[in-house]
Amino acid sequence: MAITLYELVGRDAARPFSPHCWKVRLALRHKGLDFQSAAAGFTEIPGLEGGYSKIVPILKDGETLVADSFAIAEYLEDTYPDRPSLFGGEGGRTLSRFVESWTQRTVHPALARLAALDIHDILDAPDQAYFRESREKAFGTTLEDFVADRAERVEPFLKSLEPLRAILVKQPFLGGESPLFADYIVFGAFQWARVSSPFRFLPAEDPVSVWFERCLSLYEGEGAKVPAAA
Amino acid sequence: MAITLYELVGRDAARPFSPHCWKVRLALRHKGLDFQSAAAGFTEIPGLEGGYSKIVPILKDGETLVADSFAIAEYLEDTYPDRPSLFGGEGGRTLSRFVESWTQRTVHPALARLAALDIHDILDAPDQAYFRESREKAFGTTLEDFVADRAERVEPFLKSLEPLRAILVKQPFLGGESPLFADYIVFGAFQWARVSSPFRFLPAEDPVSVWFERCLSLYEGEGAKVPAAA
Repeated sequence: MAITLYELVGRDAARPFSPHCWKVRLALRHKGLDFQSAAAGFTEIPGLEGGYSKIVPILKDGETLVADSFAIAEYLEDTYPDRPSLFGGEGGRTLSRFVESWTQRTVHPALARLAALDIHDILDAPDQAYFRESREKAFGTTLEDFVADRAERVEPFLKSLEPLRAILVKQPFLGGESPLFADYIVFGAFQWARVSSPFRFLPAEDPVSVWFERCLSLYEGEGAKVPAAA
Repeated sequence: MAITLYELVGRDAARPFSPHCWKVRLALRHKGLDFQSAAAGFTEIPGLEGGYSKIVPILKDGETLVADSFAIAEYLEDTYPDRPSLFGGEGGRTLSRFVESWTQRTVHPALARLAALDIHDILDAPDQAYFRESREKAFGTTLEDFVADRAERVEPFLKSLEPLRAILVKQPFLGGESPLFADYIVFGAFQWARVSSPFRFLPAEDPVSVWFERCLSLYEGEGAKVPAAA
């Protein structure tokens, strides 16, 4: 059966940047599943698959539709149990939720404060209007002000990564010797910043950076195929 | 075979307070294993079992000695595989390390700034001297100064618990419907504060508090058997 992954893009349809879509992209490669990507801008999402979901990723596997990156990972795990596991068992599945929770509350908000204006700038005009209005309402300030002091935010952000870093100095992946979906959860966040923003904040020698490069090279360099924003 | 758990105590040998020892105590109950507790003060640890370890917990199972709470959990999991699992599979085992890493870098340092002086005060005289000297050197300040502004530290600490809280509003335990070792890792930290310090900081309605009370009641109230510090 054919698998389609609906992914978020800006003006350049070849540069998917959504963290959540990247999680699923690597999850599909982890499972060894072929898929085609279907690109959509923010304002096109409500029209996908008859208005199936307000968010991407959306996975279409044959006639089955699934939205939300974690739900998709669970779908893939349950539907393709004989392929390499994304969770390493039920305990890994439930604790991947904690990795997701930490990532969304520690890494995502910090990256937004570094990259929000750059994300705006890669979008096409209708998406720029949508993004600016919705985000400025959520942030309570202009995109420009939201990222104005980003240089000073790098150091505390790098410090907040210590729980992750402390693991990655001891082992190649959060999953141990090989990656699990938990790795893709965190990878997606950094890939979001890498693809959408030229602002560099991770020192090359940081174990988080070394791990991120390792993730970029997985599956014939699936993540590295999209060059970093310049 | 008889199992002995060496645990850290202060003047009152009936009030073990080490977070790491509490993790193991609940892990043993989780596995349904009988054990006896052997209490030790800080300065007695180097003399235990012929100088086996500088830290507690130390588990003695028959002739086998294991130190370090995570190593003990792994030992119990591997040695008693037919008992309820502490990790829920290999993925859960490896991601429990991330829960540990987050707890030790987010929860422990914050609790130390609330409870360090109270911990000192429950120790006997030789341990008080050891604790004050080693901690003041590590903290770079007196114990009194270290906790002086603890009231102002509560709010940011509660905020830092959001990755945990967001999970616990959706499910009873980090492990899902039932607890895993990951729960005991975080529980140990809060139990450390509860047993050693009368300073209260968790609002009763906080989902973290609700979860903590749930953990206290596990295994016939193993955690609750030691009353909170007053």
